[in-house]
Amino acid sequence: MSTAGKVIKCRAAVAWEPDQPVVIEEIEVAPPLASEVRIQIVATSVCHTDLYHLLESMNKEGFPTVLGHEGGGIVESVGPGVTEFQPGDKVIPHFITQCRECRFCKSPRTNQCEKAWTRVRQEIMAGVESRFTCKGKRIHQFMGLGTFSEYTVINQIAVTKIDPAAPLDKVCLLGCGICTGYGAAVNTAKVEPDSTCAVFGLGAVGLAAVMGCKAAGAKRIIAVDVNPDKAEKAKVFGATDFVNPKDHSKPIHEVIAGMTNGGVDFSLECVGNVEVMRSALESSLEAWGVSVIVGWTDMYDVAIRPGHLICGRTWKGSVFGGFKAKDGVAGMVKAYLEKKVKVDEFITHNMALDQINEAIELMKNGKCIRAIVNVSPQ
Amino acid sequence: MSTAGKVIKCRAAVAWEPDQPVVIEEIEVAPPLASEVRIQIVATSVCHTDLYHLLESMNKEGFPTVLGHEGGGIVESVGPGVTEFQPGDKVIPHFITQCRECRFCKSPRTNQCEKAWTRVRQEIMAGVESRFTCKGKRIHQFMGLGTFSEYTVINQIAVTKIDPAAPLDKVCLLGCGICTGYGAAVNTAKVEPDSTCAVFGLGAVGLAAVMGCKAAGAKRIIAVDVNPDKAEKAKVFGATDFVNPKDHSKPIHEVIAGMTNGGVDFSLECVGNVEVMRSALESSLEAWGVSVIVGWTDMYDVAIRPGHLICGRTWKGSVFGGFKAKDGVAGMVKAYLEKKVKVDEFITHNMALDQINEAIELMKNGKCIRAIVNVSPQ
Repeated sequence: MSTAGKVIKCRAAVAWEPDQPVVIEEIEVAPPLASEVRIQIVATSVCHTDLYHLLESMNKEGFPTVLGHEGGGIVESVGPGVTEFQPGDKVIPHFITQCRECRFCKSPRTNQCEKAWTRVRQEIMAGVESRFTCKGKRIHQFMGLGTFSEYTVINQIAVTKIDPAAPLDKVCLLGCGICTGYGAAVNTAKVEPDSTCAVFGLGAVGLAAVMGCKAAGAKRIIAVDVNPDKAEKAKVFGATDFVNPKDHSKPIHEVIAGMTNGGVDFSLECVGNVEVMRSALESSLEAWGVSVIVGWTDMYDVAIRPGHLICGRTWKGSVFGGFKAKDGVAGMVKAYLEKKVKVDEFITHNMALDQINEAIELMKNGKCIRAIVNVSPQ
Repeated sequence: MSTAGKVIKCRAAVAWEPDQPVVIEEIEVAPPLASEVRIQIVATSVCHTDLYHLLESMNKEGFPTVLGHEGGGIVESVGPGVTEFQPGDKVIPHFITQCRECRFCKSPRTNQCEKAWTRVRQEIMAGVESRFTCKGKRIHQFMGLGTFSEYTVINQIAVTKIDPAAPLDKVCLLGCGICTGYGAAVNTAKVEPDSTCAVFGLGAVGLAAVMGCKAAGAKRIIAVDVNPDKAEKAKVFGATDFVNPKDHSKPIHEVIAGMTNGGVDFSLECVGNVEVMRSALESSLEAWGVSVIVGWTDMYDVAIRPGHLICGRTWKGSVFGGFKAKDGVAGMVKAYLEKKVKVDEFITHNMALDQINEAIELMKNGKCIRAIVNVSPQ
């Protein structure tokens, strides 16, 4: 019996309030409206940004919510006027949109989309409109998505149809972290062949940035993390050196300058910490270093000396690796199927939706790179 | 009677200590050593960086000094091994060097020169070695130059031979401010045709940045200054709009966003104030704005929200407008002689070396754009 046009009751992990375990609840998912698609989520993963919202940002207005923005699924039904998707399509949702019509989408200079601009700027940590209810309450969809649910409803400009050959319990990771890190190196920093690079923070985003530096032909990639367990994993993705700031009494930028005749050509901050952002900038060569902020935080200012830029550095930032959302996701899935980018190597754990608090704990304690949460059968 | 090889006694304006008037003194100028040239300064000008050293930085170790780094003159004699110059050549000295041999000079990515790197980084406000003495004391040459003197000795990598047709009492301005602002727009920001720009601060550097934006084909150039007297001058150099932050209750970046559908494509900070640096960054379009720090200060940190960069802005800095020193000065002198860049329009006052304290006061009080100080007959 078709569910199209009807409210679907299903299971989802609801974050009722900040800094508390999420709770598996039965929720109601309304049918898609115009330009929307309803998706059965097959697999999802916990990204640090989910934790940021749950544990750090303390934005009470963003609760209750269904977290999750790195997922993959199958279209269950489509709303009026949707022609790009049909039931049965394999899809990956994404937290940035690509409408293909606005001045930003038409420009090669940005991956922002004007239709989602206000949301990305001001409400990136909260849902906007939501199709979820639970116990009579409206439940936010985190970042307009909410993939910690068996079903969700998403605007078509935030969904990409992918090759049916792609395994959703792997490529769901291309919905955020891997594209974010890889693209930051390739698209935003524009890492050059034979260059030297430093990547700060070796979670999934940082490891993907290492992979991006290698793909771009960097000859030396210095991976930096305070957790020595990350060293081996970093080498899998192409790091040539590992530096643990705790092993040195000097500031890390001085250590890196000493290793690289003054600093690296490209540095990428994949932590989301304002002190590390400064260190990453200072670790790049004063004369022409390019430093990219990839890690997300917006609670504090980051401070630098003007002289750090004046003598020739460039400081940039990157959302979703600078990829235009649909083009990027489709391209990265293709690259994965052609074995040009690694995805499986990011997966350290597999679990069921019931175990999602365990996945959150693993991420919180730096004990996993990516834990796949299997939401529905593929 | 030739002075070559002998100590020259001449007049110079000596800054004995911070925040005091300079004093015209008789100083001794030693002959040039290997790789050095001794120059008779014909004309010089006061730049804000001289004032910064004299009045703001309070770096006691940088005194006593002869200020002045924007000048033009004629080679009097050359040291051993100098083949690029001979007595009688018209020259412009510059505070950054171009040795043409180091990894920086050989790269198109920077205008830094490794031979001067340490100096530029750590001692930009102080002299290094000096050939000046006065009353038995060694006197610094500010920024390695010291053009507030009838004679000075400078390393050949910091001097450019120019077309003898160029009037030194005009083109001396190409030794710093005009190249700094013009190049920041053209070389560092890489302003594009039909773009929108905002220039903060309308001293000589800011006006030159306006001129650079116009030369690059910007369709709209918003000139920003708290001094309403600057509006008319800005139009001479190509500004299409003038905004005085004092006329608005909203922050200036919101005013500019309102004028430009979200922000300008390119913004240039030509003040040297960390709050203005932040405003300039915030005034650029979030999706792809490029903001360049041109004004010099290094006493305070500048703070921003990481989100200002993450969504797509680029933040850069510029020294000497990104021009490789010798190539840039020679090229800009040529452009002036071909009437492709304005220089005369920056000159608001002409005076003698004796009046240098008056020139300093004019600059300090924002009453001049550039005052030419005629040091020796041309």
